[in-house]
Amino acid sequence: MSRIAYVNGQYRDMRDAGVNIEDRGYQFSDGVYEVCEIRGGKIVDMPRHLARLQRSLHELRIAMPMPQAALEVVIHETVRRNRVTYGIVYLQITRGVARRDHAFPTKPVKPAVVVTARGLNYQKNQETAARGIGVITIPENRWPRVDIKSVSLLPNVLAKQQARDNGAYEAWFVDGEGHVTEGSSSNAWIVTKDGRVVTRSAESGILAGVTRAVLTELLAALQIRLEERPFTPAEAYEAAEAFVTASSQIVMPVVRIDGRPIGTGTPGAITTRLREEFHRFSNFS
Amino acid sequence: MSRIAYVNGQYRDMRDAGVNIEDRGYQFSDGVYEVCEIRGGKIVDMPRHLARLQRSLHELRIAMPMPQAALEVVIHETVRRNRVTYGIVYLQITRGVARRDHAFPTKPVKPAVVVTARGLNYQKNQETAARGIGVITIPENRWPRVDIKSVSLLPNVLAKQQARDNGAYEAWFVDGEGHVTEGSSSNAWIVTKDGRVVTRSAESGILAGVTRAVLTELLAALQIRLEERPFTPAEAYEAAEAFVTASSQIVMPVVRIDGRPIGTGTPGAITTRLREEFHRFSNFS
Repeated sequence: MSRIAYVNGQYRDMRDAGVNIEDRGYQFSDGVYEVCEIRGGKIVDMPRHLARLQRSLHELRIAMPMPQAALEVVIHETVRRNRVTYGIVYLQITRGVARRDHAFPTKPVKPAVVVTARGLNYQKNQETAARGIGVITIPENRWPRVDIKSVSLLPNVLAKQQARDNGAYEAWFVDGEGHVTEGSSSNAWIVTKDGRVVTRSAESGILAGVTRAVLTELLAALQIRLEERPFTPAEAYEAAEAFVTASSQIVMPVVRIDGRPIGTGTPGAITTRLREEFHRFSNFS
Repeated sequence: MSRIAYVNGQYRDMRDAGVNIEDRGYQFSDGVYEVCEIRGGKIVDMPRHLARLQRSLHELRIAMPMPQAALEVVIHETVRRNRVTYGIVYLQITRGVARRDHAFPTKPVKPAVVVTARGLNYQKNQETAARGIGVITIPENRWPRVDIKSVSLLPNVLAKQQARDNGAYEAWFVDGEGHVTEGSSSNAWIVTKDGRVVTRSAESGILAGVTRAVLTELLAALQIRLEERPFTPAEAYEAAEAFVTASSQIVMPVVRIDGRPIGTGTPGAITTRLREEFHRFSNFS
């Protein structure tokens, strides 16, 4: 089955789904995006994703291209047309099409909207989670506005590729003070030997992850202590467990950092429990 | 007359010229670009631009999509079809179309190529140069790989917009040590009271500008002393003259920085001379 995309008001076969060459997303990475998990055919935590989308758009002074309720309809319809029951839906909004000039168009243009959906292999993801993934650490080299979920992702692309080149799955950025900020497409977490879960505060240096936020609620419900503070790679090497969170991966165990096995070198007990119980605090729509 | 663009092997009306929504340029800003001046219907300094393009592509491990000679033919043909005698030609190459995943496609895809051209208003540009432009200074917030001329330009977009919001034309980034790096789409220069021309070395913190390189040759020919070193906004405020260089603007006088008039508050004599004589060292093809 060919995939269907929503592009600026039309549902198109992905192969024919295009945007103009002067779309500012293409020439300037002047746009934002969201990725939501699809589970049982439903969108997971869409209200949180749309709230973050609104914030990203606001920071870039891009108008919402349609009322939120209409956008929700488009998202659901895209998922339905692609018959995805487990997978992800991707939403991208850019400033729109205008003659190339760095500054915002003086006469506002209509923002461009693209929505796609695709199935993921549940079994394969579970197998990856059962094995756990490897992570490398690299110097932070992104701009400070990582709080905006923009498509200006070239540093993240190169970081992820560097991980792959080193036989790992994700790269964790380390800031000038020697602390882990986040992964190239995920938030970074460790579990200390006495069972405290540690992740950086969403207030600086990272994107406020939706999965991250839901997980903090789960931790509270499970009475697992959460410490929102920076940690170093050295502390991570000595941690009992480690994991990453992202909408497409939920809670993914990390079993190796910079080639060093973490804990027993297998997915940790707390990590595994968090993965299993994650959706207790998710909203399904 | 409608504009014509070259897009992946075809010459298309700009209004219908599209790239796939999964082009990595659109989803990840995973691509590079060049802008050349067109003068008398000829491309100015194309060999230097193509050499820099090759370097940018190499740094991102994107293959040249066609032999350089073929690319030159496409550039000339795009200029010809748009009947541009004075203006700019824009060339963008991205990694190509692949299912969305941060890392490079495991099976390499064909890079995407877009070339556009458009006329500029010579008289209007000369009038702008006769008045001079205003510049603001803002903190450097781009990633360190500004040596790659990538389309990951969102920080530059916001900087340029901030300039416009403040009644200026360009924003100069100032690094952590308090030195000007470059403008959001230009290199930054000052002229000291004793007639030395100062600009930052292309070795760190800036893009190696083609116009910048040609200008250094002109300076040598004119026996004007060039100092390649960083300068601060404070030094710029007290300079005799200031200007920016870019392919689309050549040498553009700066008469105001952060609201302070520079020198006499009008375009300086050395700046004006450099603008007039600039093309003596250009290659036309």
